Amino acid sequence: MSLKSFYALIVGAGPGTGRAAAIRFSKAYPVVLLARRAESYEETVAEIRKAGGQAIGITADMTDPAVIDATFDTIAKELPDSKLAAAIYNVNSGFLVKPFLETKPEEFQTALSGQAGGFFTFAQKTLPLLLEAVPDSPNPPSLIITGATASLKASAKFASFAAGKFALRALSQSLAREFGPQGVHVAHAIIDGLIDTPGTKGFPLKNNVEDAKIKPEAIAESYWHLHTQHRSSFTQELDLRPYSESF
Amino acid sequence: MSLKSFYALIVGAGPGTGRAAAIRFSKAYPVVLLARRAESYEETVAEIRKAGGQAIGITADMTDPAVIDATFDTIAKELPDSKLAAAIYNVNSGFLVKPFLETKPEEFQTALSGQAGGFFTFAQKTLPLLLEAVPDSPNPPSLIITGATASLKASAKFASFAAGKFALRALSQSLAREFGPQGVHVAHAIIDGLIDTPGTKGFPLKNNVEDAKIKPEAIAESYWHLHTQHRSSFTQELDLRPYSESF
Amino acid sequence: MSLKSFYALIVGAGPGTGRAAAIRFSKAYPVVLLARRAESYEETVAEIRKAGGQAIGITADMTDPAVIDATFDTIAKELPDSKLAAAIYNVNSGFLVKPFLETKPEEFQTALSGQAGGFFTFAQKTLPLLLEAVPDSPNPPSLIITGATASLKASAKFASFAAGKFALRALSQSLAREFGPQGVHVAHAIIDGLIDTPGTKGFPLKNNVEDAKIKPEAIAESYWHLHTQHRSSFTQELDLRPYSESF
Amino acid sequence: MSLKSFYALIVGAGPGTGRAAAIRFSKAYPVVLLARRAESYEETVAEIRKAGGQAIGITADMTDPAVIDATFDTIAKELPDSKLAAAIYNVNSGFLVKPFLETKPEEFQTALSGQAGGFFTFAQKTLPLLLEAVPDSPNPPSLIITGATASLKASAKFASFAAGKFALRALSQSLAREFGPQGVHVAHAIIDGLIDTPGTKGFPLKNNVEDAKIKPEAIAESYWHLHTQHRSSFTQELDLRPYSESF
Repeated sequence: MSLKSFYALIVGAGPGTGRAAAIRFSKAYPVVLLARRAESYEETVAEIRKAGGQAIGITADMTDPAVIDATFDTIAKELPDSKLAAAIYNVNSGFLVKPFLETKPEEFQTALSGQAGGFFTFAQKTLPLLLEAVPDSPNPPSLIITGATASLKASAKFASFAAGKFALRALSQSLAREFGPQGVHVAHAIIDGLIDTPGTKGFPLKNNVEDAKIKPEAIAESYWHLHTQHRSSFTQELDLRPYSESF
Repeated sequence: MSLKSFYALIVGAGPGTGRAAAIRFSKAYPVVLLARRAESYEETVAEIRKAGGQAIGITADMTDPAVIDATFDTIAKELPDSKLAAAIYNVNSGFLVKPFLETKPEEFQTALSGQAGGFFTFAQKTLPLLLEAVPDSPNPPSLIITGATASLKASAKFASFAAGKFALRALSQSLAREFGPQGVHVAHAIIDGLIDTPGTKGFPLKNNVEDAKIKPEAIAESYWHLHTQHRSSFTQELDLRPYSESF
Repeated sequence: MSLKSFYALIVGAGPGTGRAAAIRFSKAYPVVLLARRAESYEETVAEIRKAGGQAIGITADMTDPAVIDATFDTIAKELPDSKLAAAIYNVNSGFLVKPFLETKPEEFQTALSGQAGGFFTFAQKTLPLLLEAVPDSPNPPSLIITGATASLKASAKFASFAAGKFALRALSQSLAREFGPQGVHVAHAIIDGLIDTPGTKGFPLKNNVEDAKIKPEAIAESYWHLHTQHRSSFTQELDLRPYSESF
Repeated sequence: MSLKSFYALIVGAGPGTGRAAAIRFSKAYPVVLLARRAESYEETVAEIRKAGGQAIGITADMTDPAVIDATFDTIAKELPDSKLAAAIYNVNSGFLVKPFLETKPEEFQTALSGQAGGFFTFAQKTLPLLLEAVPDSPNPPSLIITGATASLKASAKFASFAAGKFALRALSQSLAREFGPQGVHVAHAIIDGLIDTPGTKGFPLKNNVEDAKIKPEAIAESYWHLHTQHRSSFTQELDLRPYSESF
């Protein structure tokens, strides 16, 4: 099998971490980008192709089971005989900061299901594919999850957001323990700081220092490192934050 | 106001922690016991009344919003002019241990909503009542939540159960930070061991030592201590485990 | 054996937590107060005696092995036929906040040995006595340790102080696991806030709110609760902080 | 400045992590290996030189201040005009597993000072050198520390060992917060498993699975990744463990 017989899958492939991860992993594998809207991945797909890589973009709402099944059918058709080497769950289901008593049940449900529910479905679909790749994948098949400061600490007014992120972390920890011994590397990254994306362009920088926002390319580099770790030395969790960040 | 103008509310009032907490708090307050089935609380209500205390049992499924509203209307009618001094969330939504790939989405949803979803509703209903009690409650109005080993560690095959417990812990942490400064004590207890209930009677004891299962009365005593802590010295989280437990 | 056949020992018995713990435990047991200087405990000893309790003050530098041996000989003489029911390690070895590169090796050593070294000696002396009390002590013999915010988080410029507090926490955790199954309760309290003592009188209060400093009596009440927990339900660690504290 | 104007320093350069890190970093920098005995580094130095790299071995007991000063004088002479780009603290001060009451004060002191004391000195010597390298170092100047399972969890009979490792972690955390904003990357690695070294050759493997012991080369690769992380995205702590390890 050639390296081209494996692919990487990124869900939440908008500008920022998703885009950077797609570009980084496209240096080794064909990449599949999933997002709710085509404009989230179109430019990235074009950029990867222009650089000589192989990229497929699929519009999909990962909370709809029928859509999910169709999505994986599409992937199987587009990349026949390819195995899944890396799956990245980088879904941003909205950053809710709100007094608890003003939070609507629907908002809470969205926060919870966007993180924990969406990942549950994604993991159930990708883990069997990752297990299939164990015997001959060039790197340990990997499931990499994007967490946040709120994965570890639930601040005031972050109840819903943190509930989703805590639950997501629980899943990633439990899956690491269940699937690690089977050869799949499940890793969770705590992104502790503002990411440098078009969306955060106007956000003020503390003390106006340089590099105070996390470069998505730097996150992608750490994700690539996680993916290429030898199976005798897996990282389950790491934090990533700007040198200038208080913590 | 007399002490009788305040009441305690226990949801998940079955045998075990819920029953013991009801009995402990009934020494100071009228208590309201909520459970999905009347047989869960009937004996306890009778026992408290026989001992001279005041107890009300209400059958309610806390995941149904209409039922919840009706429940709090009933409480207001039964205990007019009473304020809520303590609310205990002790819901057991089933202990799911299952390989991840065999877990059905419904099972995951039940685990998640039973813990995080049910508590979200409970907290939205009780926090306004607890805030009302702040000025004259004999003890800081308290919201006490029952956690488990899986609140801190997500073991293999515990993905769903741990996701619910992690999310529940996130909520309790965030609410402690938001409502603590307003005078409400939100505390989370990590119950790390088997509880001595009718349901665990047949469970084997490690090395056959005495007191290897947690006495519900001991948990209740710690809950009472949490409730009576001075507001200058609140505990947000404590663990409770048998002396003989490995951890 | 009567309750008077057991005693409690408090090291670090100055104003604040030590004094309050001595007073609280003196309601049940004769208490022995240890401090480096007599003026730290003299008033407390007098106050306990005046209230009808039994108290002994001993001046001792717990870092000097010869002094420690002499101290326990004195206790044995003063309280013959008495067993140790509770030992509290509440040593304040100075609160060092200093840029790391300006910290002298001696300052680091003092921070480390005052916390970890002093407790090592104290625990080696008291654990055999606590084990002796297991069969007939009215409450599980207890070793209670005072930690701080810096036991969990090492902030900038707190390197030395946190190193001592982290090491102290390691010891308390390991001893809980080793001696818990033998019936001794080892508990660690994270005091996360300013304590209301003569020494902090002038310290500013955030927002000028009431009860923003921890009442030593409230800490003592939690220590007493820890001591009286049933052995089926030991707490290894709890935090204590004012309701108004950010965390 | 050329890349050769920077060097890496490894203390605890025996077989295992130290040796592998020296070899990995020698691909980019001249490396200095420090160990208590020459036989710990001699072969590694020869191997690096044979491969075309530059390596210097120095015998030094890092607990003796006079020796430390002489060591850094030697480095300055051997590598004039070179700046320190990476310093790795990988000291193994003995793995003490012993019932607490049988532990001698000297054993406890050795465990504590070998980890916390030795690192205090090492950090005081290297941080000023790392700060000097900030403006022109090709990668953020890094201080990387080897931790262990016992850095996070103090098991029964591990009191002394864990006290040292907890204190070491406190130092690394505090220094990350103090020196990160100045451009120095302080990172702590939790090595959670047996390392595959000559010393562990005979140790039994769980279930006899392959790669159940951590390859030192894999740890070294993660250390190199930490060193090359962009300053907008520093990792403070990561864990490294075999895929087959229970945790």
